[in-house]
Amino acid sequence: MEVMMNNHNNGTTTNTKIIHKNGSICNGNGNVNGNSHNHNNENKLVEFTNSIKPGWFSEFSALWPDHSIKSLDYNKLYRFDINIVQSTTYGKVLTLDGAIQHTENGGFPYTEMIVHLPLGSIPSPKKVLIIGGGIGFTLFEVSRYPTIEKIDIVEIDDVVVDVSRKFFPYLAAGFDDPRVTLIIGDGAAFVKAAQPGYYDAIIVDSSDPIGPAKDLFERPFFEAVAKALRPGGVVCTQAESIWLHMHLIKKIIANCRQVFKGSVNYAWTTVPTYPTGVIGYMLCSTEGPEVNFKNPVNSIDKYVKSKGPLKFYNSDIHKSAFILPSFARDLIES
Amino acid sequence: MEVMMNNHNNGTTTNTKIIHKNGSICNGNGNVNGNSHNHNNENKLVEFTNSIKPGWFSEFSALWPDHSIKSLDYNKLYRFDINIVQSTTYGKVLTLDGAIQHTENGGFPYTEMIVHLPLGSIPSPKKVLIIGGGIGFTLFEVSRYPTIEKIDIVEIDDVVVDVSRKFFPYLAAGFDDPRVTLIIGDGAAFVKAAQPGYYDAIIVDSSDPIGPAKDLFERPFFEAVAKALRPGGVVCTQAESIWLHMHLIKKIIANCRQVFKGSVNYAWTTVPTYPTGVIGYMLCSTEGPEVNFKNPVNSIDKYVKSKGPLKFYNSDIHKSAFILPSFARDLIES
Repeated sequence: MEVMMNNHNNGTTTNTKIIHKNGSICNGNGNVNGNSHNHNNENKLVEFTNSIKPGWFSEFSALWPDHSIKSLDYNKLYRFDINIVQSTTYGKVLTLDGAIQHTENGGFPYTEMIVHLPLGSIPSPKKVLIIGGGIGFTLFEVSRYPTIEKIDIVEIDDVVVDVSRKFFPYLAAGFDDPRVTLIIGDGAAFVKAAQPGYYDAIIVDSSDPIGPAKDLFERPFFEAVAKALRPGGVVCTQAESIWLHMHLIKKIIANCRQVFKGSVNYAWTTVPTYPTGVIGYMLCSTEGPEVNFKNPVNSIDKYVKSKGPLKFYNSDIHKSAFILPSFARDLIES
Repeated sequence: MEVMMNNHNNGTTTNTKIIHKNGSICNGNGNVNGNSHNHNNENKLVEFTNSIKPGWFSEFSALWPDHSIKSLDYNKLYRFDINIVQSTTYGKVLTLDGAIQHTENGGFPYTEMIVHLPLGSIPSPKKVLIIGGGIGFTLFEVSRYPTIEKIDIVEIDDVVVDVSRKFFPYLAAGFDDPRVTLIIGDGAAFVKAAQPGYYDAIIVDSSDPIGPAKDLFERPFFEAVAKALRPGGVVCTQAESIWLHMHLIKKIIANCRQVFKGSVNYAWTTVPTYPTGVIGYMLCSTEGPEVNFKNPVNSIDKYVKSKGPLKFYNSDIHKSAFILPSFARDLIES
């Protein structure tokens, strides 16, 4: 168990290392000089005003149709760009920059799939890198695999981790796994500086290609990812909705086809709280031992006992994620 | 070509027979005495007020989370319970009783699947009954099969047909097929009175199990459907969302298992404009020649040329519709 420092937060002691992108090291409360984030009001919940009507949470975006859902008990700002909503149907909802990121009752398909599609496709993953995913859910799912020895997670915003510890402690528990190193910093820069050929799998659990996550959809980032992966290593990245973003998806696929010489695949799944109800993934492998993503070789079923059953993912769902509707198949495979 | 009367609507002459539930026969404008619907303002578009904010269309329901989407150019009442919304993303949207029923750019998965899941599963369908589906899209998809000789469609509300002729004429064109008989009346009563063993397939394209469509989810209706089907005949009914309505789905499945002695299956697909982004179907067959819904025997691919390609459905999508997430599989198969 490699620990750089203890992380004292809300009275619990955890084993997570936190390394800031500027090289400084801090505890989980994010109170470090030189960090660009606003930590001043992180524990003050203030009324959320970015709504078309009080009691409703609204998403406004150039990337998807503006829409609103009714919220129940509260709809509060944790920080200017982080909102916690209580929804009757979906339970607690975390939004970043005005977009729903995670919901208690509807977020699990996204996370189970972004983890088990790649890790179910290679025999014995040992070293995994997660970019984004500060809520800790992705980490929780990765840590189910006992073959894994090392998990690095690079989250650009330590306050997201704090929010998860406060509102979703059962997810943030993933940070306490002794195999985990949390790096607070820029994911693209981290991958670029990573040891070549180091990781078996890289999971890019990013937000959308506007704002801070923009670089994570560009070719230089994919090139850095390919370099950081071992031969026959795999990457899974969030890749938008076939209903709304086919122009973006085609661009991402074209980039991946130039960079990843093993295989390049598009998969999708349903997420009830995302616009259009679906989300896609790019599944790519580097040149080396062949990876057939469409036929999982590493069944998670045998590992799930200690952390409770999976709610969404199973081997058949894995295979069906690569089956596309005709309009999307024609555009993606052309 | 069997025609009872010509249907003059918007200057076009069609071959559809329209038989009212009270036995009277009328043209497509719905102006018949003794019909219980409100025809007075059918051609007057008035401002729609059932919205949380002007310029937004809102759904309020006990069955799913209240939500709103921004509408663009207009948001108008066609009749007190029929609304036409213009959405940037989804094009023209038809709502009935405050719930989105059809969208130009996002409605096709629902309709292609409710038709081709059952008709793709039997070799040469000849006689098909559609209950609901007054928009005409279901009819349009059914009429792709050249083996089909007779299509009966029972729509409770003739104004829905009028609205489709006005706003979605390319869908309503299905009513002009000479194989079609349109019956304006109660679907449950029609099925109960149907000739036993008459239909190869029955498609129940209903709204939700509150209000007028409630009977279409109850056991007496399923018993009438089973009786109206030939041995080894098939039914496909709309069967709600696995995210929200598992209690309803379990009840529907239990009813179907008691009634349909061939096979009983649950399938699902994605529809971007429905709450939670998914919709389910019950696929059942009567005792007789075996029907394996999970392996389509009747490929629609060879028939599609004359009516343009399918956008969503293909044989692989057909098979994958029966693959369920773990939580739903455990509940449905228990």
